[in-house]
Amino acid sequence: MNILLVHAHPERTSVTRRLVESAAQVLTGQGHEVVRSDLYAMRWKAVFDAADFPVRVDPGRLSFVDESRHAYAGGCQTADVEDEQRKLRAADAVILHFPLWWFGMPAIMKGWVDRVWAYGLAYGYRGAGNTHRYGEGGFAGKRALLAVAVGGPAIDYSPRGINGPLEQLLFPITHGTLFFPGMQVLPTFAVYGAAALDAAGMAEADAAWRGRVARLFDDAPIAFRAQNGGDYPDRHVLADHVAPGRSGLMAHIAEATRSPLDAVKIAHAPGVAIDCEHRSAGDRTSHTGNRR
Amino acid sequence: MNILLVHAHPERTSVTRRLVESAAQVLTGQGHEVVRSDLYAMRWKAVFDAADFPVRVDPGRLSFVDESRHAYAGGCQTADVEDEQRKLRAADAVILHFPLWWFGMPAIMKGWVDRVWAYGLAYGYRGAGNTHRYGEGGFAGKRALLAVAVGGPAIDYSPRGINGPLEQLLFPITHGTLFFPGMQVLPTFAVYGAAALDAAGMAEADAAWRGRVARLFDDAPIAFRAQNGGDYPDRHVLADHVAPGRSGLMAHIAEATRSPLDAVKIAHAPGVAIDCEHRSAGDRTSHTGNRR
Repeated sequence: MNILLVHAHPERTSVTRRLVESAAQVLTGQGHEVVRSDLYAMRWKAVFDAADFPVRVDPGRLSFVDESRHAYAGGCQTADVEDEQRKLRAADAVILHFPLWWFGMPAIMKGWVDRVWAYGLAYGYRGAGNTHRYGEGGFAGKRALLAVAVGGPAIDYSPRGINGPLEQLLFPITHGTLFFPGMQVLPTFAVYGAAALDAAGMAEADAAWRGRVARLFDDAPIAFRAQNGGDYPDRHVLADHVAPGRSGLMAHIAEATRSPLDAVKIAHAPGVAIDCEHRSAGDRTSHTGNRR
Repeated sequence: MNILLVHAHPERTSVTRRLVESAAQVLTGQGHEVVRSDLYAMRWKAVFDAADFPVRVDPGRLSFVDESRHAYAGGCQTADVEDEQRKLRAADAVILHFPLWWFGMPAIMKGWVDRVWAYGLAYGYRGAGNTHRYGEGGFAGKRALLAVAVGGPAIDYSPRGINGPLEQLLFPITHGTLFFPGMQVLPTFAVYGAAALDAAGMAEADAAWRGRVARLFDDAPIAFRAQNGGDYPDRHVLADHVAPGRSGLMAHIAEATRSPLDAVKIAHAPGVAIDCEHRSAGDRTSHTGNRR
């Protein structure tokens, strides 16, 4: 298989980069081909702007959607964007490694998405607007996984933790960025307390990570509901019978993946909204020793 | 009062820029001082990297936290970052205007946060780790408001809409980025269908926006729970008696701001988790004519 490792930390000894090296080791050891996009080393252009469209459909007014459609369809994107799309096309799985900055990606990686996720490929697939999205699209058939170095303690990201659950904070990425163009997204792997991790903590996190990487093609993805799988009859809103009475981000994950305990809770309160957490393997295996 | 308008769209005729111009008109008309950070025109450096730390505490290893602490405390940040911090310090309110790209900020604005939100100012306030955050910190006493141009239709962002509710998708920004260092954050103003808005739709959105801007210092902020207000006795997790049985992002908004209808629902099911939506003024006033 081909795996693309995209990463966004300039410091070789960072937790992020340690996870990148381990992923590469495990995957090459399994006989896979590993390709990297080291965004800092590449001096990746983060800002999506007029320079992304050397041949304009409308030189007088910059519409990112119109120009992206034109550039992608007409083969007049910039070479750096085409290179990344080529890597993505060849990949069976993509791992995005980054430190969590203000509860999201560093700007350099956000700019990788902004520029590479073109109209016709990652949205507006086949020029058909939103017909193909969430479970199908230009990246269908690929797996995706986030490996996130989190400065704060795991407890702050627990179901009632002050920051909010990590899974919900990352939903714009896992669901909105990766599942949207069709990728199957695995539960996020997080290393908490990354800002002050000692050698033992790093070794523990690394061992857990190597296990996750080894199961990259075996672990069950997050059960995000596909747009065209029947749960959204009008392609916009959940059908009344799906997750009845529930709303918000977590309603878009099928109950099948919930733990037996959560299933029991739901069974006891039919029709009542339950904001229970989808527990990911990442939650269980992440380092939580450095909590405060 | 002093208001800082930060914006991230290079096209003068974009919905984003139209909202910026209207905000400036309304606020100057009220006698306020308006300052702008036009990130594209400024050619803002989006990528947070070693160049942000011209004088290093550790030249051998790049720790963003350690270097940010050192640079901010020692007065050795770069001039562009210091300029933005000066504008923020002088501001009574900050409005961030941006198009929603992949359910978040464009990279250029994320990089404004990454670089300007320094240790000692926006986190690690007074060098005291997480002692002062969520409701207090370096930006306490200031108001903040997001003005977001959304390509898709409002229905996709409704409580059971396929993208997830806009308020939850933006929680990493409203709660995690703005409330974290102490700002009072108003409900987000969104213009939906921005990619295909006709003149009438734009006029309607603009009128609603001008009303919101005129009430910048009057509207009630989102009732995010303060870390040190009693709801988080250990500064990490909600006390058992607060929002009992609930979890996830919305548990961090006090029920007081919910509509009477939601309050009734809660009263009828004490102790049962209810994932009801916090309805913002932005939801009610935003343009929804161009839905599909």
